[in-house]
Amino acid sequence: MLLALAFLVGMARLMGEVTRWVRQPAILGELLAGIILGPTILGAIAPDFQTQLFPQSGPGAVALESIGSLAIVLFLLVAGMEVDLSIAWKQGPAALRIGFWGTVIPFAVGFAAALAMPGVLDHPAGADLTIFALFLATAMAISALPVIAKTLLDLDLYRTDLGMIVISAAVFNDLFGWTVFAVILGWMGTGTSGLGIVTTLVLTLAYTVLMLTVGRWAMNRILPILQAYTHYPGGVLGFAVTVGLLGAALTEYIGVHAIFGAFLVGVALGDSPHLALRTRVLIDEFIACIFAALFFASIGLKMDFVAHFDAALVALVLVLACVSKLIGSVLGAKWSRFSTRDQWAIGFAMNARGAMEIILGTLALEAGIIGEPLFVALVVMAFVTSALSGPLIRRTLRRQQRHRLTMYLSPKQYVASLDARTAADAVAELAGLVAQQTAFNHTAIQDAVFDGGLTARAGIGGGIAMPRARLTDLVRPLVAVGISKSGIHFDAPDGRPVHVVFLLVMPEKDATTPLDLSADIFHLMREPQCLERILRASNYTEFLSVIRTSLPK
Amino acid sequence: MLLALAFLVGMARLMGEVTRWVRQPAILGELLAGIILGPTILGAIAPDFQTQLFPQSGPGAVALESIGSLAIVLFLLVAGMEVDLSIAWKQGPAALRIGFWGTVIPFAVGFAAALAMPGVLDHPAGADLTIFALFLATAMAISALPVIAKTLLDLDLYRTDLGMIVISAAVFNDLFGWTVFAVILGWMGTGTSGLGIVTTLVLTLAYTVLMLTVGRWAMNRILPILQAYTHYPGGVLGFAVTVGLLGAALTEYIGVHAIFGAFLVGVALGDSPHLALRTRVLIDEFIACIFAALFFASIGLKMDFVAHFDAALVALVLVLACVSKLIGSVLGAKWSRFSTRDQWAIGFAMNARGAMEIILGTLALEAGIIGEPLFVALVVMAFVTSALSGPLIRRTLRRQQRHRLTMYLSPKQYVASLDARTAADAVAELAGLVAQQTAFNHTAIQDAVFDGGLTARAGIGGGIAMPRARLTDLVRPLVAVGISKSGIHFDAPDGRPVHVVFLLVMPEKDATTPLDLSADIFHLMREPQCLERILRASNYTEFLSVIRTSLPK
Repeated sequence: MLLALAFLVGMARLMGEVTRWVRQPAILGELLAGIILGPTILGAIAPDFQTQLFPQSGPGAVALESIGSLAIVLFLLVAGMEVDLSIAWKQGPAALRIGFWGTVIPFAVGFAAALAMPGVLDHPAGADLTIFALFLATAMAISALPVIAKTLLDLDLYRTDLGMIVISAAVFNDLFGWTVFAVILGWMGTGTSGLGIVTTLVLTLAYTVLMLTVGRWAMNRILPILQAYTHYPGGVLGFAVTVGLLGAALTEYIGVHAIFGAFLVGVALGDSPHLALRTRVLIDEFIACIFAALFFASIGLKMDFVAHFDAALVALVLVLACVSKLIGSVLGAKWSRFSTRDQWAIGFAMNARGAMEIILGTLALEAGIIGEPLFVALVVMAFVTSALSGPLIRRTLRRQQRHRLTMYLSPKQYVASLDARTAADAVAELAGLVAQQTAFNHTAIQDAVFDGGLTARAGIGGGIAMPRARLTDLVRPLVAVGISKSGIHFDAPDGRPVHVVFLLVMPEKDATTPLDLSADIFHLMREPQCLERILRASNYTEFLSVIRTSLPK
Repeated sequence: MLLALAFLVGMARLMGEVTRWVRQPAILGELLAGIILGPTILGAIAPDFQTQLFPQSGPGAVALESIGSLAIVLFLLVAGMEVDLSIAWKQGPAALRIGFWGTVIPFAVGFAAALAMPGVLDHPAGADLTIFALFLATAMAISALPVIAKTLLDLDLYRTDLGMIVISAAVFNDLFGWTVFAVILGWMGTGTSGLGIVTTLVLTLAYTVLMLTVGRWAMNRILPILQAYTHYPGGVLGFAVTVGLLGAALTEYIGVHAIFGAFLVGVALGDSPHLALRTRVLIDEFIACIFAALFFASIGLKMDFVAHFDAALVALVLVLACVSKLIGSVLGAKWSRFSTRDQWAIGFAMNARGAMEIILGTLALEAGIIGEPLFVALVVMAFVTSALSGPLIRRTLRRQQRHRLTMYLSPKQYVASLDARTAADAVAELAGLVAQQTAFNHTAIQDAVFDGGLTARAGIGGGIAMPRARLTDLVRPLVAVGISKSGIHFDAPDGRPVHVVFLLVMPEKDATTPLDLSADIFHLMREPQCLERILRASNYTEFLSVIRTSLPK
């Protein structure tokens, strides 16, 4: 079992990194890891080894299964925490309108398509057609809130009006989709509760309403008390996990799936402004890195993706999903008087589907509502829409990604030990390095730094200096870094000698990059022990490792 | 299963908090939680409910068991990360001497006692006496590194020579104890490997040596690369968990217990200076708060602690453990020329036993080496020695715990909204509050603040001011806090208006408290968003919640 887990976590992280390098969401890689270790690839190469490592039955299978369900409950708890209802309420009618039309139209299209051509859409013989249609409609309708949030953050749109409205619309969308899905599950009576459909539905609705009102209020009261009087962060972490598990157990008992309960507990918790950012980050990173990876990889284990790939079905699902979602969201945005460009940006943002479709798909598959080919098609649809979202918004709004210091660092522009003893020499030394990468003469760069007396303001304190130069014909910004163990006098406000010199060479017309980069450098200055750790780095990789672990994401 | 987990985590955290309030380690509460939910208490009150919630067999039991073993593997990975070999090597002969005698004497005493009076020490009929004696010797010999580190940190002794030597001695002790225990397990052939004793022992030794040399070297190379080029912190977290699980699977295959492999991976990982503090904290807090709690609680589930409590055996084990450990460590310290007072402080520090005894005890119990009464005695011994360690060192060295800002805050000395518009008025308002708690007149306090022109330096920037007063006859330091939404001009270096005023009133002779408190306040000043969050707090609990989540531990 330990070996199986090691393989799953390791492969999931590895493939997650690979897909990140090609600028795709990590979840795609995690799923691929499961496909590699599952019957699709490893099972085809070494079937005996595969079934020995990942048994399909017996105690080994139960063990993996139970760790998997713990992982998914924790993951949904975190996903719920990202839903911020208070922001959603503030955005008012525009968000509601976009959320409403962006949900209802794909829902209607999905429902109608399922009824009109059940055969083409791989409706399993014997499964109830209404439930099948409801499921497909829901899968078309739910946007991926975490994907949207991440895309907007990357493009620095999150805190804009447009960003907040899209997020609010997606929150509405999420809650609607989940409630409908809970209703479907209750209807089918997949629960082992035997409470009867009506009781299940009433209890589900009661749980939802209670969690979003009394639950939210109670969490908001309890959190500051926990943070003030119990061990931090243990108290809050323990509370979040306990309440999440209780919610999960409760909805499981009601007859809806456990994850619904965990998700709503997450919403109630995450909504509290008292939840400290550190707690959020702690829960989020650990669960997202290990448990979510484990869960998505384990999905790939369950089936043979190649054998169940049906190109026509995949294309049909993809087209239906994109067209219906775009029409709904763009119309909602149009009626809220957004410009044509913004309408499309909103449409592309809302079009992203993701983890939820896969989770719903897994549940539907287990319950026999859908077959493997449709599941594969849904997974592909989720990925394609997520992957397209960022680039399409960027193109529509002509937005740039936020500039980060780490994007501009390179081993060629790094000096592990500066020869210079004075500020002017240090600038000259780094300017020489930059000159090798560009058509500029190094004295031109040097002069540009000294012009305007910038050296006087270069020392920013904390042992860091940041001389800047602006060059008219430069195409892209350049950053050179030099380390001085002995220290250089730079007239810093705190009078300390400078050990790290960042030379920023910027195109004359670029106004945003220098600001973004300075923000990162100021952050380094304030980060405890960062300077010490930079001085201890013995090569470029170690230096970059310090910088990356010291900057916020 | 979800409900069982919710009960375990929730009860463990709850009892952990209760024991923290009475200044005992949280682990005691976690174990108590298991005892409450296990056969000892819940099983006695409601046996049906207990066995339904925590089944002893069937898939439910397998599921709980597998989550428990994942938890213990992760916990040992973290425990290994706390072992810092590089520090241990630097301390030289004194650390080795203390470590050696502090390990060998209790080991010899435990071994001899087991051979001399197996009946009294509850040697199970049929179990090999040599193995039993080896186990008891090891259980006597291993000090609890995490408990020692925490005690020294609390007393501000960690970074002193004495502290470093104790920690190094404990590291030596830990490695020795674990290797011996691995040998015992290999000898017994509890592993399902069927590799034969000699092969198991040779492979165990090879794994240990390789991990501490090649493994350490490789981790130290890989970590900066991961931190520099993969998603942070996901890459490092995933790597740590994967390698930990692989090590666990490998040692399990060799025939030693899985936790030995995870522990050594932790040692190799934690030793790298490149492992960023943030990663360490992230892994540590999440695992310690949730998984360790889960594991220790699940120990209590396994047996009836009241029925197996044998007072004479408990007393005997306790006396043997304390006397032998104290003699060994004090002699080692004496031969290293420590003063008598330091010798005893070292002895009391090394005397702390903890989690390791309980884990070893659990394994020995499962393997049939020991019976329930001895297990209970070992658990009690571990707690008593841990709980005594801190107070005894404090008394011996007359050390004070480090002063923390949160120790001095109280709702009585908190003003949610200052009436004052000037710095002098703000000081007067807070001085009035302090005067109510003491025999001093509020003008005396005010005058003490203004004496020496302290107001000029009171504004420290970032919207925080920290006026100070020293009073000759004051017994204990007092801190009063006032919040001003509108802002007060305080001549701060950054010119910003002050929103939070901390008035520190200190006894004339106390030199350390003001420094400790100022350090905390300066930390708050640098913490992003802290001021905003303080201003948003609507009552004392919310204010304290912000302060506690913003300060480091």
